[in-house]
Amino acid sequence: MDFVTFLKKHQQRVNIVLAGILPDEAKNNLHQAMRYSVLNGGKRLRPLLVYVTGLALHGNAEKLDIPATAAELIHCYSLIHDDLPAMDDADLRRGKPTCHKKFDEATAILAGDALQVLSFDLLSRDTKHLDCSQQKQMISILSQACAQMAEGQSLDITHQQQISLAELTKINQLKTGRLIEASVLLGAIAANCQDKKILNELKKYAQHIGLAFQISDDILDMESHHETLGKPTHHDQKLNKTTYPALIGIEKAKQKLQQLHLEAMDCLQNIKLEKSLLVDLANYIIIRRK
Amino acid sequence: MDFVTFLKKHQQRVNIVLAGILPDEAKNNLHQAMRYSVLNGGKRLRPLLVYVTGLALHGNAEKLDIPATAAELIHCYSLIHDDLPAMDDADLRRGKPTCHKKFDEATAILAGDALQVLSFDLLSRDTKHLDCSQQKQMISILSQACAQMAEGQSLDITHQQQISLAELTKINQLKTGRLIEASVLLGAIAANCQDKKILNELKKYAQHIGLAFQISDDILDMESHHETLGKPTHHDQKLNKTTYPALIGIEKAKQKLQQLHLEAMDCLQNIKLEKSLLVDLANYIIIRRK
Repeated sequence: MDFVTFLKKHQQRVNIVLAGILPDEAKNNLHQAMRYSVLNGGKRLRPLLVYVTGLALHGNAEKLDIPATAAELIHCYSLIHDDLPAMDDADLRRGKPTCHKKFDEATAILAGDALQVLSFDLLSRDTKHLDCSQQKQMISILSQACAQMAEGQSLDITHQQQISLAELTKINQLKTGRLIEASVLLGAIAANCQDKKILNELKKYAQHIGLAFQISDDILDMESHHETLGKPTHHDQKLNKTTYPALIGIEKAKQKLQQLHLEAMDCLQNIKLEKSLLVDLANYIIIRRK
Repeated sequence: MDFVTFLKKHQQRVNIVLAGILPDEAKNNLHQAMRYSVLNGGKRLRPLLVYVTGLALHGNAEKLDIPATAAELIHCYSLIHDDLPAMDDADLRRGKPTCHKKFDEATAILAGDALQVLSFDLLSRDTKHLDCSQQKQMISILSQACAQMAEGQSLDITHQQQISLAELTKINQLKTGRLIEASVLLGAIAANCQDKKILNELKKYAQHIGLAFQISDDILDMESHHETLGKPTHHDQKLNKTTYPALIGIEKAKQKLQQLHLEAMDCLQNIKLEKSLLVDLANYIIIRRK
């Protein structure tokens, strides 16, 4: 199976699990908002990281479904809250009205709240595929990632202008990096990996591709058109947010992207696991179609 | 020790734990907002329910600290989000500016998000006093309570006028009842109780005092003065929210309160545990000082 087929298959897989676990929308407004914001054709990068890592460690896909779903729910919650008028004030997300535009602000806040907690509910309930210690470890990793995401978003909205490269890197690491790291670790743990060296190298791999993902996103935002991304571009500039290409120039940002790519590959060299999917996913993230 | 002394001692106890586990406020704005919104002299009813239930089942207080703290963090998060302009738009909470008034709306949203998740982080980390299965069970109970709280708040803001007694009861059960129920169950589980009959009766006890607490709050809101409660009264009327006394009259609401009190006491009759603290706490909730 080529990687694009693999991606599509697993995007579809996690979409089916997501559709199954989200509360029935007939019931109320809040549940409609939750389904609307999750089942909207997202790339499912975080679930893919869970699957790819778990499969690289010979885990089976059934064991990875709930961790993959949990990571995506956290991502979706963070997007809903980031889009709110008090934060980035975004009207469109993935080409459609953002949650607070489609519903209202109160419903969007509550939908985010409920999606965050649904993630922990799911992880604590899946006794069919995960043992107690795996569940606890995943909840711990994911809850700490969530805390740091909120911290990153807080720093991001506080320091929108004139920040240093170090500060920008820190914000990115907290805001997007930690959940990418957590997704990789969730995949490894679900595949019964407790080898400290492997977990550590996978964590570093995730850190590199997490930062690369952000830089790649910034470059896309600067270069692309509305039609391609499904959201207004130059949005970061409109918000006066500092990005990598804005701070160091687009060429240097591209060089940094390549360097992070190499560093991510290096992490995979010293550990024993089925590398190909992890290599493919890094390529997919870093050399995304424009 | 009389009950008021017991209350004060355990309020102080949970305040110390809360102060210790909240992130250091020197670090950033978000952490300041989290500390501000939690360490503000709240009554700590939910932690008290955890302690009282756990002690009634001969659990020791050290085992109850983290569950008590986790329940309070969830309560504090829900207050911050309920107070937001998009929801109840409240300026004061416990006599002080609400989180979004003291900081800003974005910070208040994030502080709520971070407090919710800190609760699960804590429960997944406390391996000193809780075993894996207790932790998982508590996370499951608390996360489901959170999901239902969000649902209750959503129903509350959607149906502000002309609802039936049944609908009002449902909203109250979801919005405040579930966390009160969860607090009692957390206390029981931390005290190693897995007896289904006891857990079931305790759950019913919690449901009765949970609803009683809400009705008592509504009556206080209608009757009291600003100085006593530290928040503007008649606030529910201002928001056009339906309350028990508004729907069935203040006298019938008081009768309902007494009935719920009796029902709560009945639940304690058939189970073997040290009842006195649970009886005292029910009295405290239902016959609150005006």
